[in-house]
Amino acid sequence: MNRTEALEIVRKHLKLSRYEHTIRVTDTAVDLAEYYGQPIDKIELAAILHDYAKYRDKNEMRRWIETSNLPKDLLQYHSELWHGPVGALLVKFEVGIEDQLILDAIHCHTTGKAHMNMMEKIIFLADYIEPGRDFPGLDTVRIQAKKDLDYACFLALKNTIDHLVIQEQLIYPDALHAYNDLLRKIKVGE
Amino acid sequence: MNRTEALEIVRKHLKLSRYEHTIRVTDTAVDLAEYYGQPIDKIELAAILHDYAKYRDKNEMRRWIETSNLPKDLLQYHSELWHGPVGALLVKFEVGIEDQLILDAIHCHTTGKAHMNMMEKIIFLADYIEPGRDFPGLDTVRIQAKKDLDYACFLALKNTIDHLVIQEQLIYPDALHAYNDLLRKIKVGE
Repeated sequence: MNRTEALEIVRKHLKLSRYEHTIRVTDTAVDLAEYYGQPIDKIELAAILHDYAKYRDKNEMRRWIETSNLPKDLLQYHSELWHGPVGALLVKFEVGIEDQLILDAIHCHTTGKAHMNMMEKIIFLADYIEPGRDFPGLDTVRIQAKKDLDYACFLALKNTIDHLVIQEQLIYPDALHAYNDLLRKIKVGE
Repeated sequence: MNRTEALEIVRKHLKLSRYEHTIRVTDTAVDLAEYYGQPIDKIELAAILHDYAKYRDKNEMRRWIETSNLPKDLLQYHSELWHGPVGALLVKFEVGIEDQLILDAIHCHTTGKAHMNMMEKIIFLADYIEPGRDFPGLDTVRIQAKKDLDYACFLALKNTIDHLVIQEQLIYPDALHAYNDLLRKIKVGE
């Protein structure tokens, strides 16, 4: 599946603003893939499809989680976290993508997870730093994105967890596992 | 075992400043136990013994974790977190305390955990708010301690996680599980 075909598929599933976000995430992810010598076509496809399930009905997503092998604890957290894992499932079944690397990167793009591979880190980070985003600390993360990918992902998670704690919001454990895992990698590198 | 006997035992295992902290935690815990109509003798004993393993040699604590049924992931986190779980083990074997409620409260007093019972919450909170402590936000937690025990414990965890994230320190997952669990209880109560 090429870029044009994939964009045509997701366009039908997204609002215009979210489609434009998807383009920006894709451009950012491709840029990072080139910079880090990673497979560009796969990362491009993962980025285009990362928000495939963003506007699925909550009840439908709940049923997918209940009846598939997706982690059941997702149901105890905000439904905003569901579109990644459910998206990976639907991109496999509805779109026919079978590449597990692409599916994994879609799955964890919102929360991160421990032991992310390069593609997972690039999609996670591209979604966070794409040029349409604007929140405190983002400039530092953007600068670090091409200096130290682990540290950039760590800073994104640090900012997110800090924001959620201050706002007294639930935090999905995978985000903490990602934070701890990347922190250990950074400390080793010091 | 009465208060005097228990204090005599821990005194040999603690520096003077830590022994004085133990007295303050005990007084605070007994006060909370009386206020919430909880078993005073048990909570007093748990409070007196909560830091029993505080000054054990790190290598000894590591061996206890490695060779017992304590969670192995503790070894991947700061050794400051080991004295609670190891303490519960040693208080059972060395002191002969068999009451599981007391042992559980000692086990999780540093990090908290999901679904804490009343005794666990009281020991966790007493350790955090005892009058010798002094850090930002503590006055609010002290006030909440006799208004809403769940909210007070939640605020303690919120402050701790926020502090650790800002300091870029590892966070033991049980602390997050406690935070999420208490947040759900508070939200239901709103």
